[in-house]
Amino acid sequence: MTVENVADRAGVHKTTVYRRWGTVDVLIADALDQGRDVDWVAPDTGSVEGDLIALATEVVDTFADPVRSRVPVALIAAALQASRAREAKNRYYAARHAAAAVIAKRAVGRGELPEGVDVEELVRQTCAPLFYRVLVSGEPVDRAAAERAARAALVAARAGVLGAG
Amino acid sequence: MTVENVADRAGVHKTTVYRRWGTVDVLIADALDQGRDVDWVAPDTGSVEGDLIALATEVVDTFADPVRSRVPVALIAAALQASRAREAKNRYYAARHAAAAVIAKRAVGRGELPEGVDVEELVRQTCAPLFYRVLVSGEPVDRAAAERAARAALVAARAGVLGAG
Repeated sequence: MTVENVADRAGVHKTTVYRRWGTVDVLIADALDQGRDVDWVAPDTGSVEGDLIALATEVVDTFADPVRSRVPVALIAAALQASRAREAKNRYYAARHAAAAVIAKRAVGRGELPEGVDVEELVRQTCAPLFYRVLVSGEPVDRAAAERAARAALVAARAGVLGAG
Repeated sequence: MTVENVADRAGVHKTTVYRRWGTVDVLIADALDQGRDVDWVAPDTGSVEGDLIALATEVVDTFADPVRSRVPVALIAAALQASRAREAKNRYYAARHAAAAVIAKRAVGRGELPEGVDVEELVRQTCAPLFYRVLVSGEPVDRAAAERAARAALVAARAGVLGAG
């Protein structure tokens, strides 16, 4: 991702991009901060297992889509190299975790999960094996991987292993 | 990471690097393939819980070390952008997972884990929450995070959730 590519795609001259953002790092940070305001709503299927499987399936479907998968991959690549993009990425995922944590809060309210479970850790634990396959080991993810990740996270939460430290 | 930086650090002219490897992508792939031959041995503490905690702690200690942490981060950044590095990274982690899977195999032999558990999935599940924090959400990892990741993976394996699909 370069200023030239962005300008080319947008059909503007690269000086327009440089004047507004200066570097790709700042452009990415700005785009991410704008994107955070879009109202993403956590799945609400009526059970914590259904919600976590839906959340994990959303991650898998994003990675399976050749266009949408570019977003997390480009973000993480940019964030590994530049601090403004890194901070924006971290804010993005913090907001997403906070929004998804409602799944765990509702589950505690329904008595499906013990009080004191770390609600955001349940979200991280659900998503982590999928990101690990895509980014680290380079292995495929599918709906079965999504269900396995969701069920593993849920079992750990129910066993009290994800309790706030 | 650029050919210029590599040449500079090695105290050679950049044409020497170009002549041998051509691009950073190929250089990284070559370095990784050489590194795979170094004999990494999985921890062997006498219990699967101890082994998994030791494995997760090794991951955390690597990320906590400003020098050693550059290796996985540089690899993954390079792999996101170039195919030779990506293939080499994938081979690297496949070899590491296969080597670490002995932890799960020994545990099955000792009756600590059910037959049919996916031995490599237990390794992925142990490491994934740590890589997720470092690479995706940008949150700190510590020994407590390592223990939590290991225990969560173990609970899931014991519950049969990590069985071969």
